[in-house]
Amino acid sequence: MFEAPIQRLIDELARLPGIGRKTAQRLAFHLLHVEEEDARRLAESILSMRAEVRLCIRCFNVTDSEECSICRDLRRDPSILCAVERPQDIVVVEKTQEFRGRYHVLGGSISPIEGIGPDQLRLRELVARLDDEKVTEVIVATNPNVEGDTTALYVARLLKPLGVRVTRLASGLPVGGDLDYADELTLGRALSGRREM
Amino acid sequence: MFEAPIQRLIDELARLPGIGRKTAQRLAFHLLHVEEEDARRLAESILSMRAEVRLCIRCFNVTDSEECSICRDLRRDPSILCAVERPQDIVVVEKTQEFRGRYHVLGGSISPIEGIGPDQLRLRELVARLDDEKVTEVIVATNPNVEGDTTALYVARLLKPLGVRVTRLASGLPVGGDLDYADELTLGRALSGRREM
Repeated sequence: MFEAPIQRLIDELARLPGIGRKTAQRLAFHLLHVEEEDARRLAESILSMRAEVRLCIRCFNVTDSEECSICRDLRRDPSILCAVERPQDIVVVEKTQEFRGRYHVLGGSISPIEGIGPDQLRLRELVARLDDEKVTEVIVATNPNVEGDTTALYVARLLKPLGVRVTRLASGLPVGGDLDYADELTLGRALSGRREM
Repeated sequence: MFEAPIQRLIDELARLPGIGRKTAQRLAFHLLHVEEEDARRLAESILSMRAEVRLCIRCFNVTDSEECSICRDLRRDPSILCAVERPQDIVVVEKTQEFRGRYHVLGGSISPIEGIGPDQLRLRELVARLDDEKVTEVIVATNPNVEGDTTALYVARLLKPLGVRVTRLASGLPVGGDLDYADELTLGRALSGRREM
């Protein structure tokens, strides 16, 4: 046991995901030894993040104003939506610089084990946007796992009858990868999704 | 790039040792989604740790009062000192429940590469304690590496002429370990430090 103020900080740090007791201890002593200013900046960035961040009223991306910077960007094509599970997935897709439409954050994926059904996802809001924004295609960019696949299937069944094109990110071999290291499921997907040359 | 308040927090988190961009991002979004109260408690424990923690005037352990709880404890034997590099090393030694003396935090180890010489360590303060507290033995518990060994040697040469016994933690095989997995240096130390049975 450390003296109270340090032990309290260690306990708080150890509540963070992926941070064990040892790491929490190391971080706490780091924060004890850095410049006062540096420790204060970290604490204040936590508080100001909580105070300033809200969800975009249109796509539910995180933002510090009413609409996020992507929805505000007039150069983006509003007729193509990319549906993602979480706000942080948007940054990953943006980095490809291949997508110029807007996003829709579902807020998770369908997972009976975690008790998350379609009702907990922002599907009503997605359907409402189809008309409002004259959407012609929804790219479902949920994770390539059971929950993500289930969610994609559900979204497809929900939206197709409304006359919108629903697509899914391709699964297959990672670029620069090696056949030897591909797991069977990925290789199976790569086979079934093979393309004419 | 994330929206400003989140990006600022990610940047601050990524400055912590051992926290990369990916982890910083994961932690920032975790802090965005937890209860307001939980995020606030973490921020405040950083600030209050910085405000409340000071160094024990006797041994330089971290404390929230003038002397640390170990120095204040009248049941501890003041005649044996355990010299450690950093305050967090005290907790490690305490966990063994084998040591009932007091500590002295040197504040690092001699490292020419990092520009730390004997003058930067709290050796003057250590020497002053020998008389004041009628110390008979100083156990040097610096790390079993080059810097720790150098520091231990320096402390021994400094204190022995003053008539105090100077000892060093034994190096050797970890208890429960396996000869197969011992590195050569450790095994070498275990050999040279072998004990009569």
